[in-house]
Amino acid sequence: MAKQPKTAITPTREEDYPEWYQQVVKAADLAEVSPVRGCMVIKPWGWTIWENMQRVLDGMFKETGHENAYFPLFIPLSFLEKEAEHVEGFAKECAVVTHHRLEPGPEGGLIPSPDAKLEEPLIVRPTSETIIGSLYAKWVQSYRDLPILINQWANVVRWELRTRMFLRTAEFLWQEGHTAHATKEEAVEETLKILDVYADFAENYMAMPVIKGEKTADERFPGAVSTYSIEAMMQDRKALQAGTSHFLGQNFSKAQGIKFQSEAGVEELAWTTSWGVSTRLVGGLIMTHSDDDGLVLPPRLAPKHVVLLPIYRTDEERTTVLEYCENMKKDLQAQAYSNGRVEVLLDDRDLRGGEKAWQHIKRGVPLRAEIGPRDVASDSVFLGRRDRGPKEKSGVPRAEFVANITSLLDEIQNGLFEQARKLRDENTRSIDNLDEFKAYFTPKDADRPEIHGGYAVCPFVEEQAVLDILKDLKVTIRCEPVDQTQEPGTCIFTGQPTTRSAIFAKAY
Amino acid sequence: MAKQPKTAITPTREEDYPEWYQQVVKAADLAEVSPVRGCMVIKPWGWTIWENMQRVLDGMFKETGHENAYFPLFIPLSFLEKEAEHVEGFAKECAVVTHHRLEPGPEGGLIPSPDAKLEEPLIVRPTSETIIGSLYAKWVQSYRDLPILINQWANVVRWELRTRMFLRTAEFLWQEGHTAHATKEEAVEETLKILDVYADFAENYMAMPVIKGEKTADERFPGAVSTYSIEAMMQDRKALQAGTSHFLGQNFSKAQGIKFQSEAGVEELAWTTSWGVSTRLVGGLIMTHSDDDGLVLPPRLAPKHVVLLPIYRTDEERTTVLEYCENMKKDLQAQAYSNGRVEVLLDDRDLRGGEKAWQHIKRGVPLRAEIGPRDVASDSVFLGRRDRGPKEKSGVPRAEFVANITSLLDEIQNGLFEQARKLRDENTRSIDNLDEFKAYFTPKDADRPEIHGGYAVCPFVEEQAVLDILKDLKVTIRCEPVDQTQEPGTCIFTGQPTTRSAIFAKAY
Repeated sequence: MAKQPKTAITPTREEDYPEWYQQVVKAADLAEVSPVRGCMVIKPWGWTIWENMQRVLDGMFKETGHENAYFPLFIPLSFLEKEAEHVEGFAKECAVVTHHRLEPGPEGGLIPSPDAKLEEPLIVRPTSETIIGSLYAKWVQSYRDLPILINQWANVVRWELRTRMFLRTAEFLWQEGHTAHATKEEAVEETLKILDVYADFAENYMAMPVIKGEKTADERFPGAVSTYSIEAMMQDRKALQAGTSHFLGQNFSKAQGIKFQSEAGVEELAWTTSWGVSTRLVGGLIMTHSDDDGLVLPPRLAPKHVVLLPIYRTDEERTTVLEYCENMKKDLQAQAYSNGRVEVLLDDRDLRGGEKAWQHIKRGVPLRAEIGPRDVASDSVFLGRRDRGPKEKSGVPRAEFVANITSLLDEIQNGLFEQARKLRDENTRSIDNLDEFKAYFTPKDADRPEIHGGYAVCPFVEEQAVLDILKDLKVTIRCEPVDQTQEPGTCIFTGQPTTRSAIFAKAY
Repeated sequence: MAKQPKTAITPTREEDYPEWYQQVVKAADLAEVSPVRGCMVIKPWGWTIWENMQRVLDGMFKETGHENAYFPLFIPLSFLEKEAEHVEGFAKECAVVTHHRLEPGPEGGLIPSPDAKLEEPLIVRPTSETIIGSLYAKWVQSYRDLPILINQWANVVRWELRTRMFLRTAEFLWQEGHTAHATKEEAVEETLKILDVYADFAENYMAMPVIKGEKTADERFPGAVSTYSIEAMMQDRKALQAGTSHFLGQNFSKAQGIKFQSEAGVEELAWTTSWGVSTRLVGGLIMTHSDDDGLVLPPRLAPKHVVLLPIYRTDEERTTVLEYCENMKKDLQAQAYSNGRVEVLLDDRDLRGGEKAWQHIKRGVPLRAEIGPRDVASDSVFLGRRDRGPKEKSGVPRAEFVANITSLLDEIQNGLFEQARKLRDENTRSIDNLDEFKAYFTPKDADRPEIHGGYAVCPFVEEQAVLDILKDLKVTIRCEPVDQTQEPGTCIFTGQPTTRSAIFAKAY
């Protein structure tokens, strides 16, 4: 007979981290594969997490002076071709629209109508620099028209066959900011300002500690002068790039003709930036906090903060308990929390209590309050926290519960952040020689190939030889942290003197 | 010398209504044509109106028990083919993705890679019944899994070459609700409940009076059993279909296999509905309220409710006036209004006062408050209302202005609704003979071919002969109002006895 699993999710993180991830997504009902290869369906619980992320980020963008707008889904092929590196970077993963009508085929069924072939194919946007740039070129005449600070919430498509829910899908949802400025300094400032916004969001809402840094040349966005990212460590010690902010210099302005007359009356090219985060963040959220019982949600992004679980046997008990629950729900929801209010779910479905509670554990609801006739009699709730063991529950007087709800949620939020930071710090090491570097990234246990060292911080020079060594080891340069001091050191790969150092890690 | 136009928009509504519309869109900076044929760019002011619409509608959907989710952009061709009427309805306007990669072409440039041709073409969703239905078929096993009440906010594509901003574009943004129910009654109830939600939104937020009714067979959504719509009258007396709610019966359940085991243990097909409103609503909003000076916005959907226009000459005056404005802004924004707060724009740009005020008139800001040193001295503002003439301004004590701001906005909101209702009622007539009907829909003035009678309410029978007459007259049957009583009458087209009557109108 098979051993009874002790956890709600099988396999556990220890046993098989990638499969554990898929099972958490499934058990929490976040998303599923769709009949369209490479595309996912985001189900209501997963969608609401994304909605909450959108609401917070949107507020942050508006606070920093940005407006939203909307640009076409399609990009004419010729637009993509205008910036050489850009098209090179995206040509291999483009969904191409070639026809605009269907007609009955010779063998029955429908086929793309040969008479309705487009003169110029359209690309489903993989990103919108080129189409947006072409419009900015019209909108910008004078320095008075700058800066343009626009963001777009949209879907994009980058063809992928090896997909993983939230982390890599052909279609994904994101925001893409596109700004144009009169000076280089302003554009660089914007690039870094957004990097700070992303880090703020990741740490203070997702409870996911991140390192802000600059990407090396080979990891830059196609067409960018410099790319910055926030990098987070997942529980398998791999890095996840969670957001990027690009300083595009004048490359796209040149390609698209974004010119303006300066205050001095001279025609100049604008300086542009672009930046984005996507539904990938939901994947990062899952892998940062979840455990072997399923999803764990930081309260500030949870669709529901508290689930009330009424317990009763008789109709009379039902009336009493439900009335008690309804009142409590009202009192809890009257309180502001994070960017909204305390969100309460009263789950009165006709399901066994244990099954019901486990559903909410697997879906990551921060607090579960069981309420039966005895709790009503003693004016209290029987409270379980998602950040503690599933059986660790205790009675709390109702008044205390209601009065402390937001501080309790904050406590959970902060605890999750600290736990993630601890994991990262314990798995980050400065390494100054190649042998140690290799050993660090070699799995200790052949049965668990995905578990390795974590982050290594090493002096390096940016050379092909270094990239070749890293490729063999399947290790990547994540970034050069923006807040590090440049100290003289020796490149661990080539022995050359250098003042640069970076975070190295295996990565998603 | 050309005559100086007396209005901010040229031509006026009287002179050329269709062109007036385009000029209002342009003057208010709502949107513009894009380099991609058939697609538009929605600029920040227009986008914020849509965002406000989304926020209100989303709240209404959630209030009525719906959740949001997200489904793929692409639909496999075979899915579309499953429902015969459905594919017939959309085949001629499909954007078809046939390749997933580009490669260098023989003549330079890039071409869709012949090696990356999709085995099955993908259609960019024109609507999502088929893809969503295929997932519901997986999700629904038992009556306990029903109802499913899901909405999606998404972009869709229906190829169009003759486009008109907001009203008809190849790509547009919308919400599409898709629900599945155990019984016919529940599904019909849902269809009508949403029709009520749409009417509530149109009337109480857009200030646009609508008639709720059922479409005749030839105007049904492809694959629906019955289609309901809300119909609004624009200022040129033409009707605009502003939202539709479809009872799909078991047609899509059959095509997609959405089956469930009933409480009695019998396998049954689910009953489904779908419903949507789109960015077309923004077009309806514009055409309902705007005047010859530009956009007029109902306050409940306006991005900004009040613009403060500081006026000063010296630096000293500047300091005093701006401080006064900042304080007023704070006091105004502290007040809740509609689903948010009073939104105030303090416009301190270095532009001539007249030019600045006219920009905000053309953009439809409900209230303009001019504030100069004399206003500060008398602790008042010089107030202009967008629903009054541009020169009709008056001094209002600051305290009174701040205290009455929300009731003033409500007054404007209600006034706009009443004005639109009056126009509609004055241009609606019961007609009981064909000659009068023809005369009613014949323009009185050859120079203004678009201005005709308005709505005609007539008894009719649903027959091809009737449709043929209407086609010649370019008149359409808008709907049979849901709240009308069925009285015996005579079809004005065929002379047959009938108890049915409908609204007839020219339409967008």
